[in-house]
Amino acid sequence: MKKGVFITFEGADGSGKTTQIAKTAEWFKSLGYEVVCTREPGGTPAAEKIRNLVLDANLKIAHQTETLLYLAARADHMAQLIKPSLEAGKIVLCDRFSDSTFVYQGCGRGVPLASLKMLDSFATGALVPALTVLLDGDPEALLARRIKRAVSDKFELEGIAFQQKIRAAFLALAEQEPERIFVVDALQEEAAVTAAILARLSKVF
Amino acid sequence: MKKGVFITFEGADGSGKTTQIAKTAEWFKSLGYEVVCTREPGGTPAAEKIRNLVLDANLKIAHQTETLLYLAARADHMAQLIKPSLEAGKIVLCDRFSDSTFVYQGCGRGVPLASLKMLDSFATGALVPALTVLLDGDPEALLARRIKRAVSDKFELEGIAFQQKIRAAFLALAEQEPERIFVVDALQEEAAVTAAILARLSKVF
Repeated sequence: MKKGVFITFEGADGSGKTTQIAKTAEWFKSLGYEVVCTREPGGTPAAEKIRNLVLDANLKIAHQTETLLYLAARADHMAQLIKPSLEAGKIVLCDRFSDSTFVYQGCGRGVPLASLKMLDSFATGALVPALTVLLDGDPEALLARRIKRAVSDKFELEGIAFQQKIRAAFLALAEQEPERIFVVDALQEEAAVTAAILARLSKVF
Repeated sequence: MKKGVFITFEGADGSGKTTQIAKTAEWFKSLGYEVVCTREPGGTPAAEKIRNLVLDANLKIAHQTETLLYLAARADHMAQLIKPSLEAGKIVLCDRFSDSTFVYQGCGRGVPLASLKMLDSFATGALVPALTVLLDGDPEALLARRIKRAVSDKFELEGIAFQQKIRAAFLALAEQEPERIFVVDALQEEAAVTAAILARLSKVF
C-alpha cells in the first residue's frame, strides 16, 4: 500500500501559515498528489467541538485541562483524519501540531516537557511529521502584521515578552531536530517564503 | 492548616452509589464536617461541558480521545473543586474517579493500564483517594434494578458479558489495593450497605 506524507506548519499567529499551506497544497496538487489541508485544534467533528471549548475565553479551565483538551482533539484528528488520509496515500498539511503543544503548554503554561511528550505520544500513537515548516520572525514585526490584519487570539493577549519566549522555544526545538524542523524567515516577501519551502520540498518530491 | 478527606464511590450503574453517597454525607454532617458531594465526569463548569461532549452518543470519537476527555474533565475537577475543598478541610465524596478510568477505558476500551495510570497521575497531580467504596454486585441482578428504575447509559448497551468483565476488573483493582478499596455487597438491603460503609468509616472518624 502506498503511504502518504505528513507535513506540519508551525509559527506564531501572523507568521503566514495559512497562506503558505495553501501555496504548498497547490504545488503538491500540480505534481498530481491528493492533498488534505487541516488545522489544530480541529479537523474532525469531535475535535472542532473540543476546539470551541478550549478556545472559549469565558470558560475558566485549569492548565492541565487545557493541555489534555488539546491532546484529546489531536487524538481524534489523528485517528479519524490524519492516519486514514496517510494510509490512503495522501499528503496531509496541518496548521499547528505537537510542536505547538510543546511550546505553548510547556513554555507558556509551565507544563513539564517530559509530561507533554508522553501525553502527545499517547494522542498521536507516536506518529511524528515527516517535515515541520517553522515560520519564524521577530514578534514585534509579526504583531504589526496582526494589527494590520485585525487578527486577535488568546495568546496574543499575553504580550510581546510572552511571544519572545514562545519564539525562543520553537527555535530551541528546531535546534534539537534540524532534520525534521525547517526554519524559514517569515518576514521575507510572501513569494520568497514560498520559494524557500518549495526548494526544501523539491529535494524529496 | 487542617486537611480534608477524599473518598470515592465506584461500581456499575444501578449499584446504589448515589444513595450511599447521600447517606455517607448525612453521617459526616452529623459529626460536624463540611461535605462536598460531586461526580465524574463533571463537578466544574468546564468539566460539565466536557461531560456533555464525551457522553454524546451521536458524536463518534476515537478511544484515545474519550480517555483524554475523561482525564481533562478530571484535571479541572481536581484543580478547581476537589483540591481547594480538601485544602479548606472539607470531606469530598465523589461518584466515580480514577478507578472508573482504569476499568472502563482499560478493560472496556483496551487502553493499556500503564498509559492510563500515567495519564491519570498527570490529571490528578498524583492525588489518590484516602478511601474508595466499591459497590459490587452480580451484573444480572444490577441490570434488573436498572430496568426497574428505567435508567440507561452508554456502557449498559454493551451487554452483560461486558458488565461481567468490568466487575472482574474492579475486583482485581480491589485485590491490588485492599487498604484503599473497600468492597461492599451492593445487593444487600440499602440499610445494610449503609451500615457496612459507616462501620468502616467509624474506624477512622
